[in-house]
Amino acid sequence: MAFRAHIKVCFSDIDYAGIVYYPRFLHYFHLAMEEFFAGALGMEFPKVLTQHRIGFPTVHLETDFAKPLKYGDELEVEVTIKNVGRSSITWGYKVFRIAEPETVVSQGRNVTVTVNLDSFEKLETPDWLREKLIAQQKLGNP
Amino acid sequence: MAFRAHIKVCFSDIDYAGIVYYPRFLHYFHLAMEEFFAGALGMEFPKVLTQHRIGFPTVHLETDFAKPLKYGDELEVEVTIKNVGRSSITWGYKVFRIAEPETVVSQGRNVTVTVNLDSFEKLETPDWLREKLIAQQKLGNP
Amino acid sequence: MAFRAHIKVCFSDIDYAGIVYYPRFLHYFHLAMEEFFAGALGMEFPKVLTQHRIGFPTVHLETDFAKPLKYGDELEVEVTIKNVGRSSITWGYKVFRIAEPETVVSQGRNVTVTVNLDSFEKLETPDWLREKLIAQQKLGNP
Amino acid sequence: MAFRAHIKVCFSDIDYAGIVYYPRFLHYFHLAMEEFFAGALGMEFPKVLTQHRIGFPTVHLETDFAKPLKYGDELEVEVTIKNVGRSSITWGYKVFRIAEPETVVSQGRNVTVTVNLDSFEKLETPDWLREKLIAQQKLGNP
Repeated sequence: MAFRAHIKVCFSDIDYAGIVYYPRFLHYFHLAMEEFFAGALGMEFPKVLTQHRIGFPTVHLETDFAKPLKYGDELEVEVTIKNVGRSSITWGYKVFRIAEPETVVSQGRNVTVTVNLDSFEKLETPDWLREKLIAQQKLGNP
Repeated sequence: MAFRAHIKVCFSDIDYAGIVYYPRFLHYFHLAMEEFFAGALGMEFPKVLTQHRIGFPTVHLETDFAKPLKYGDELEVEVTIKNVGRSSITWGYKVFRIAEPETVVSQGRNVTVTVNLDSFEKLETPDWLREKLIAQQKLGNP
Repeated sequence: MAFRAHIKVCFSDIDYAGIVYYPRFLHYFHLAMEEFFAGALGMEFPKVLTQHRIGFPTVHLETDFAKPLKYGDELEVEVTIKNVGRSSITWGYKVFRIAEPETVVSQGRNVTVTVNLDSFEKLETPDWLREKLIAQQKLGNP
Repeated sequence: MAFRAHIKVCFSDIDYAGIVYYPRFLHYFHLAMEEFFAGALGMEFPKVLTQHRIGFPTVHLETDFAKPLKYGDELEVEVTIKNVGRSSITWGYKVFRIAEPETVVSQGRNVTVTVNLDSFEKLETPDWLREKLIAQQKLGNP
């Protein structure tokens, strides 16, 4: 089963319209991706950045928003690996409310490029990471 | 010429990687859209919401990120109207650094649905707004 | 023992200086207070707001910041009740890094005023909440 | 006259209670301080950080919140220098709504310590900055 991060809609995620501000969904995706490293890949995302000095800036993003989220909603954000290129990784996200687990609230994907965090030059995704990502990709597409 | 909002990358927009956190670009798009109402349509966005009680939740979003942004960058965010449906509006955004005005840093589009802010039910976009949006759409596609 | 909320420093909490942006500490305090309602008072904070229509705007705040926080730090934020007036509540916060639990990273207090969320008029804090807050106050000052 | 930064309350600054989330006021103070460097001291804050590699982490903060802020409010944030020590600077802030300029919405002060941004070790505030801060301090206390 694909990895899921647990996230609560907090007081300040709500905007003037009384729902979650839509850029916050992208923040939820990022939080879920941070959790995915520890929970699915067995490595701490902060250590990947601080010790290996590699980063994953987003170069493309697509998202559909099917339902608004309200204050107090508890969420699961599913993270899957859609593609692993030489330097690029395509990540998939689906957001579910725990109170209504059959309904996809939002889904998206983004493409990141692996870079050297100091020079911001493109790198091949290192093998120790690539292999784990590919294993996750197979899990998500059995 | 299409409307442009002026935005500065602030200290807290920067993330651990030393560049603008990518969900902040979507926030910049929203800020630019808020400015577009006053600057291009001649109406205050807060008043549209608070007095007319209509809102514009995003249902779809696509963005490409070509260049990272750094602390201190000054930006122009161009806002255009790509399509005006019965209830939907498609908005286009292009981000430029003032220091390098020929290069598109990021571009995106989102689709909003016009709703009653109290019930969140879909509404036809009212004529007083639709007409101005269509005039802007023509400006952006002469 | 006083209630503690578990919080992780996330990627986007970091600012240009490479540490947690100091207004984020106040956000951590708020997150911890939201958790405190469920964890210490046995009531969901969102329900207090949405069902009882009362709110707790802050009127005063003081904070000391002893140590910077870095990306990847895992925190405990202790929440205590310092005073319960007719309409006011004084909340205390202490932040600890789990990796170094003897050291207070930051501590603060804020004073909230209980209001009707619709009119924003001051209210007496209702008894069902006051009694639980006073019980917590005694716990924190045995 | 003391320096004032112009800030608009944006859509996403509003929280579930329909007012500006109180940690955002501290963000407004920081934004105003960033503007103060260019507007009052004649130097770009980003350049101070990126070129001189000095930073100003906050070690103490006090704020009073007299009035809530609503979506659409336009603000002036006055920045003054309260004290200039060897390494510490005490900053004062007052927030006014342009629509009601006689009323202080919020006021606060914070103390920063000047540090080397790479080592985070305390530094004496360099003379080229100290002299300008002291000139501003005199302006604010004529």
